[in-house]
Amino acid sequence: MNDASIKYVYPFGKSGTEGNKEMKNLLGGKGANLAEMANLGLPVPPGFTITTEACLNYIKTSSIPDQAKKQTLAAISKIEKELGKKFGDEKNPLLFSVRSGARVSMPGMMDTVLNLGLNEKSTKGLALQTGNERFAWDSYRRFIQMYADVVMGFNSSILESTLEDLKDARNVKDDTELSAADLKNLVAVYKKIIVEESGEYFPEKPEDQLWKAIGAVFNSWNNSRAIKYRDLNNIAHNWGTAVNVQSMVFGNMGNDCATGVCFTRNPSTGENKFFGEFLINAQGEDVVAGIRTPSPINHDSKNESNKTLPTLSELLPTAFDELVSIYNKLEKHYRDMQDIEFTIEKNQLFILQTRSGKRTVAAAVRIAVEMVNEGMISKEEAVLRIPPNDIDQLLHPKLDPNYKKTVLATGLPASPGAASGRIALTSEMAAKMKDNQKTALLVRHETSPEDISGMAVSQGILTARGGMTSHAAVVARGMGKPCVAGCTLLQIDLAERTVLINGKHFNEGDPITIDGATGEIMDGIVPTVKATIGEHFKIFMNWADEFRVLKVRANADNPADGETAVNFGAEGIGLCRTEHMFFGDERVLAIRQMLFARNDEEIKRALDKLLPFQEEDFTGIFRALNGKPVNIRLLDLPLHEFLPQTEKEKKHLAESLDITLKEIENVGKQLEEFNPMLGHRGCRMGITSNLVYITQVKAIAKAAVTCSKEGIVVIPEIMIPLIATEKELAILRELTKKIVDQIFAEKNVKIKYKIGTMIELPRAAITADEIAKSAEFFSFGTNDLTQTTFGLSRDDAGKFLPEYRNLGIIKSDPFASLDQQGVGFLVSYAIKKGREANPNLHFGVCGEHGGDPDSITFFHNNGLDYISCSPYRIPVARLAAAQAAIKFKR
Amino acid sequence: MNDASIKYVYPFGKSGTEGNKEMKNLLGGKGANLAEMANLGLPVPPGFTITTEACLNYIKTSSIPDQAKKQTLAAISKIEKELGKKFGDEKNPLLFSVRSGARVSMPGMMDTVLNLGLNEKSTKGLALQTGNERFAWDSYRRFIQMYADVVMGFNSSILESTLEDLKDARNVKDDTELSAADLKNLVAVYKKIIVEESGEYFPEKPEDQLWKAIGAVFNSWNNSRAIKYRDLNNIAHNWGTAVNVQSMVFGNMGNDCATGVCFTRNPSTGENKFFGEFLINAQGEDVVAGIRTPSPINHDSKNESNKTLPTLSELLPTAFDELVSIYNKLEKHYRDMQDIEFTIEKNQLFILQTRSGKRTVAAAVRIAVEMVNEGMISKEEAVLRIPPNDIDQLLHPKLDPNYKKTVLATGLPASPGAASGRIALTSEMAAKMKDNQKTALLVRHETSPEDISGMAVSQGILTARGGMTSHAAVVARGMGKPCVAGCTLLQIDLAERTVLINGKHFNEGDPITIDGATGEIMDGIVPTVKATIGEHFKIFMNWADEFRVLKVRANADNPADGETAVNFGAEGIGLCRTEHMFFGDERVLAIRQMLFARNDEEIKRALDKLLPFQEEDFTGIFRALNGKPVNIRLLDLPLHEFLPQTEKEKKHLAESLDITLKEIENVGKQLEEFNPMLGHRGCRMGITSNLVYITQVKAIAKAAVTCSKEGIVVIPEIMIPLIATEKELAILRELTKKIVDQIFAEKNVKIKYKIGTMIELPRAAITADEIAKSAEFFSFGTNDLTQTTFGLSRDDAGKFLPEYRNLGIIKSDPFASLDQQGVGFLVSYAIKKGREANPNLHFGVCGEHGGDPDSITFFHNNGLDYISCSPYRIPVARLAAAQAAIKFKR
Repeated sequence: MNDASIKYVYPFGKSGTEGNKEMKNLLGGKGANLAEMANLGLPVPPGFTITTEACLNYIKTSSIPDQAKKQTLAAISKIEKELGKKFGDEKNPLLFSVRSGARVSMPGMMDTVLNLGLNEKSTKGLALQTGNERFAWDSYRRFIQMYADVVMGFNSSILESTLEDLKDARNVKDDTELSAADLKNLVAVYKKIIVEESGEYFPEKPEDQLWKAIGAVFNSWNNSRAIKYRDLNNIAHNWGTAVNVQSMVFGNMGNDCATGVCFTRNPSTGENKFFGEFLINAQGEDVVAGIRTPSPINHDSKNESNKTLPTLSELLPTAFDELVSIYNKLEKHYRDMQDIEFTIEKNQLFILQTRSGKRTVAAAVRIAVEMVNEGMISKEEAVLRIPPNDIDQLLHPKLDPNYKKTVLATGLPASPGAASGRIALTSEMAAKMKDNQKTALLVRHETSPEDISGMAVSQGILTARGGMTSHAAVVARGMGKPCVAGCTLLQIDLAERTVLINGKHFNEGDPITIDGATGEIMDGIVPTVKATIGEHFKIFMNWADEFRVLKVRANADNPADGETAVNFGAEGIGLCRTEHMFFGDERVLAIRQMLFARNDEEIKRALDKLLPFQEEDFTGIFRALNGKPVNIRLLDLPLHEFLPQTEKEKKHLAESLDITLKEIENVGKQLEEFNPMLGHRGCRMGITSNLVYITQVKAIAKAAVTCSKEGIVVIPEIMIPLIATEKELAILRELTKKIVDQIFAEKNVKIKYKIGTMIELPRAAITADEIAKSAEFFSFGTNDLTQTTFGLSRDDAGKFLPEYRNLGIIKSDPFASLDQQGVGFLVSYAIKKGREANPNLHFGVCGEHGGDPDSITFFHNNGLDYISCSPYRIPVARLAAAQAAIKFKR
Repeated sequence: MNDASIKYVYPFGKSGTEGNKEMKNLLGGKGANLAEMANLGLPVPPGFTITTEACLNYIKTSSIPDQAKKQTLAAISKIEKELGKKFGDEKNPLLFSVRSGARVSMPGMMDTVLNLGLNEKSTKGLALQTGNERFAWDSYRRFIQMYADVVMGFNSSILESTLEDLKDARNVKDDTELSAADLKNLVAVYKKIIVEESGEYFPEKPEDQLWKAIGAVFNSWNNSRAIKYRDLNNIAHNWGTAVNVQSMVFGNMGNDCATGVCFTRNPSTGENKFFGEFLINAQGEDVVAGIRTPSPINHDSKNESNKTLPTLSELLPTAFDELVSIYNKLEKHYRDMQDIEFTIEKNQLFILQTRSGKRTVAAAVRIAVEMVNEGMISKEEAVLRIPPNDIDQLLHPKLDPNYKKTVLATGLPASPGAASGRIALTSEMAAKMKDNQKTALLVRHETSPEDISGMAVSQGILTARGGMTSHAAVVARGMGKPCVAGCTLLQIDLAERTVLINGKHFNEGDPITIDGATGEIMDGIVPTVKATIGEHFKIFMNWADEFRVLKVRANADNPADGETAVNFGAEGIGLCRTEHMFFGDERVLAIRQMLFARNDEEIKRALDKLLPFQEEDFTGIFRALNGKPVNIRLLDLPLHEFLPQTEKEKKHLAESLDITLKEIENVGKQLEEFNPMLGHRGCRMGITSNLVYITQVKAIAKAAVTCSKEGIVVIPEIMIPLIATEKELAILRELTKKIVDQIFAEKNVKIKYKIGTMIELPRAAITADEIAKSAEFFSFGTNDLTQTTFGLSRDDAGKFLPEYRNLGIIKSDPFASLDQQGVGFLVSYAIKKGREANPNLHFGVCGEHGGDPDSITFFHNNGLDYISCSPYRIPVARLAAAQAAIKFKR
């Protein structure tokens, strides 16, 4: 495109506005909203926005396009006419603020210059115009400081300390106590320092100031702060920022001036009451700086610290009334709670910014629900307004936001919620603390099945190794307990019973606090606030369910989790891992006896001990899920997790089997695998030694019979793990069917049940059409499927995945959010092939991705029937599924 | 289809033949060839074939279809007319043999009944007709024994011992010494025993005998022997067998009778000379039984043990002459060397069977070449005639086939060839033996990089653990050394320096022999015969190359292997693994110093030690491959293979780095991985700490420069392993290119080189279109791709894969022969996507599958450019590629 034909500058104000709120990509959020407000006839100081396109151009060429300069000058002369002022004038100077404004808000990341246009001449003009010499020189002094910092890259502490020295010399504390003469003198000193230190004169020509300021704001798009922020918030690096050049208004010209921020509704509670703070005779920075306590704008905005201060409605009632009428207009126009910045200059109200206001999750839910009730937005819009992950905050206790915490170290935020407790280095110690009425926090190198009891009696779990899907993380999420995992700065000395956290020494028994939502670890007890689920939340979730198509099930291994899940709205169990049922001393021993058995007889004896346990487990779960499907996965032993580790365990096992310790060690060695994840597990074990599966299937069938006779509606689904070939499934399906049918026939009951498989290996996905012939359902085990598709062990990936994210090789942890391009291809291929071969096949997902909103969108779009996640994630999943359905329909 | 319209019975003989040699699927091999010979006018005793379709029908319904019975009786009456005999006649009885005959030969696996039609009456008829009462009763006695065994399922040892008792009573040694009266009496005793033991009378009615015999032969398709044989030989279980009912002729009626087997060419050497053996006055069984030494049919068939016996040409010249004319006719007709069974009854020659004769590989090659020269077959046909894997036998020494070996135990046939040597339990001991002029055979639990030197000085390698692609197996194949791996019956006691092989005790230094082609392990020295590559083989391979489209490259890591490969016809190196270059004390130490380094400085120091070694390695390989491409894979460390294992190694490393043993252990622990195969390896290491790759790339570039200045044509291809995402490759490609270009520019040379990647993870295959943008070639690493697609660790799979094969879950080891359905899908998908995105992309394969004929066929059909395999497999690969090309064209 020819440069001359590109429109780079969009004016706003009474004499003509060319943008609107839909043009955020080109004008940035701030610029689009300024134009929108001008269009609405609101009192916006006139100005113009230079587009993001100009920014990208500038970044490429390091110069402002000629055309942009031309259009800028034209816009300025229009403003000069409208306001009757002149840029750089010595009588009635026009001053500008120059602010960044990207497509999405990046608060504080990029640069701003205020009072641009001041120089020796125009400062005098400002003094004249305002009749306030002190104000004029203070404005110039502030401008020089800001410009030197932002535009010239001058080390601002030098000017800052000159100001401090001056205050010391005058023996005053506050800037406001310095006289006009002092400030005028300070300006001269500033300029001298700048030329000495930088070799450059401070620019006097307003136009020069402007071009350089615009360039500096463009450049600030790529400062390291901004880049980091975009990386963290998944914002594209190639958007660029717009620049807003706006005529200055002053809230600091006297007591008929003020500046403030307000919200159209209460941002903490969501209550539909106007809320805000202001300062009389102040500039925006002063509100932020926090030197003076801001006053409440109205009665509803009063709190403990400001309740004695006069309100804006009392001090400047006309301006306040206008503000009230404007906030109503803006909220109705934007159909969302607004965060509005205003300045009152000599009793005249100006609106400097409006945007959707940040709010707590509880407030967001309440606002969304009430706006529907007020007829302002539709239910669909309400459901779309809350980011699903935010919901999680409502379900777990969190740190008291008013408490000033000190963070010792940060690990992975493995299971949300905050918890305090005394460091317990073993499960035994945690149990002992509990017995002594003390709260324990389990701190382990990593957890193993042996630690389940210790985790259960602890307030939370902290580990030094392991990732987001480590044992500790998965079990903690299932239990709804806070967990911080893989904290590399944590060192444990079990012999000394001490730990070092980022160099700080703790004894076992010392209290610490963890925040599983952020991964932070704090010294001592940090107070927490309880989770409360209010009426608005219930209404909101019901609306979500109205739109949802995907069923939501829970991953739960015991009756208690099953109940929790149902309470959170689970429509069944999508994954009942039977491995977890073997934790506990007696059961682990039986499993080990089975693994180390020398013949079928010994295997049988060990399994006979497990049968009643298993049957009881399943009975409990069927009862809890009355009328809802329960998907039980047959044993998928990661063998190594069950091998005896300590001498004591080995000895115990040897005695129980009446063999030598040496034999235990020899067999243990044989059972060891190079790559347990790719080893002799799942259905492979079920095929080579099928007694375990027979025992499990018997337990399921008997439990189903028991419950059925109690009048409970039982819907069992039996899932066979790690299938790579159709034949494996066919063999195990036949075995399973025979056992179940026989038991049902013997007990004379009729219970419908399904047999299916996990799709967790690429080969299973590729040959899904064949496997579909022997399956009634597919459940995608996306954890393992991610491991094999990427060739990436989740236990080992922690060593390099963080660097991979930093380098942009991966956008997010593929174990947390589904890799849609790679793993997702296999999922959708398997669904297509599976459905073609067997139209009655049902599809679910039971990996950790079942609780991740982005992944849920993918699963909805690919036609899965249900997702399954840990009980505490269910509301998140329900909401994400609802949003996916709404977006897909659109 | 209506039963009445199905043709179940196909007669052959002078009065009309309805089958031919193309009808093997319906008539079996034997039946089709009998019909063919009858069509040719050869003297075939008349008979008929009942189809495999009837067999399948019988297996389903347990009864012979009525229509088949009707057609059988019609065929019999035709034969009665032709021969002037009558089935069950008391004067001139017609007797039948009833034989199985499947689509492919399954020698000895199914059942046969001879002399069917005999009973009290017809035996008298036979005596009358032949004038030989003893012969008649002996035939009846044999028939009863055979029928009781095959048809009635009678324990044949009971009848056998009755015969022995009778011989004892008569005090004779040989059956032939019993009189007609003895035999007649024996028949009566047999019948009595049968009715007493089985409760069933022996059938007198010939028709009953026939139906039951046919049913028994049909059933024998599913006896356990036959099922096992089919499993082993990949023969489908649903083919069924035909039954051949043929009028009996007798080679045992006197000295004008004989029976024998002949080959149209020498089956051991392939020489074009008629070759065979016979017995005068004998039945076919007698030749097989080996009681009498068979005589040579002609002068050319004489050997040490039979050279004094008279030949058939001398004893029965008329019949011999007719046989000569027939063998010529048959060979020309079938255009292949034939294995012919004949019987001479009273000077009259009958041909009972013809089929393509089994032969040694050397003979097969010679026959194929000579038949082309004789104008009998085309070059294409010749090339198709040799199963590629057979070629391997010609390249390695093998056990002397004349020596009677005793097999102690069997492991996996990991690298072909036979070798004897003294047991050496460590590499040091093997080296010591070599120094003392003794031959060593390295016996290890499993080998590691440390063992390379020991493997190099040993005759062969035997391991207790590990599969077909274990370290020992891969390295041994590369070295062309025999290896038997994963022998579970081998136990090693390193402390006592002894081993147990299947319970037998050996000291270190005791001699044993292994056969890497069969996996057998033998006590002591078994003599071997050297491999000889003759002139015919060279001609044959040249013809193969004429048809071949796929290029064949070698996997070779050093100049010696490179030379071997070129000698075997390699057209480049497809995989030069740089890991193997780090074996050897000094290098391993440097690698370990790198792994345990605390900072970049230490890493650099360690790598600087490796650079000259690497450069030298690459220089040597480039020289050996002058003018041919060399594909070098950057380091793909399976980390754990390089960690120090013994105290001594750890101490050595600690001293060399000046750190404590405890630090070594701590760091070692941190480097350990749960699943090393899915861990921090390959390009992941190259990205997170790129100094290793930089060193390697420098070494490659410098070596290329050195060779280029020597006038050698260098074609380097740099391969980056374990790519899962395009970004990884893009980053490393840029790094590599920068280094290489800089060195080439500095040295002022121009060398074309390529950068590409292995496709060895499902994700790489799925996103091949993206990865193709940064690659100039793809090399399929089908070993790892198989591991991840199946979720199967090749190091651990040995524990259950054998059972999986037995259960028919997999047809063959997916690490030996490509899983075309699963892994193959990803290969062909990646080729399609890769080629679409980058039409200049080249495709190769460097997994073990590159040497497997079935896999090679797949690779040809999917349009790969080259395959790569270990040097000794190259001829096999060349032949397989040629056959694939010929078959694809057809």
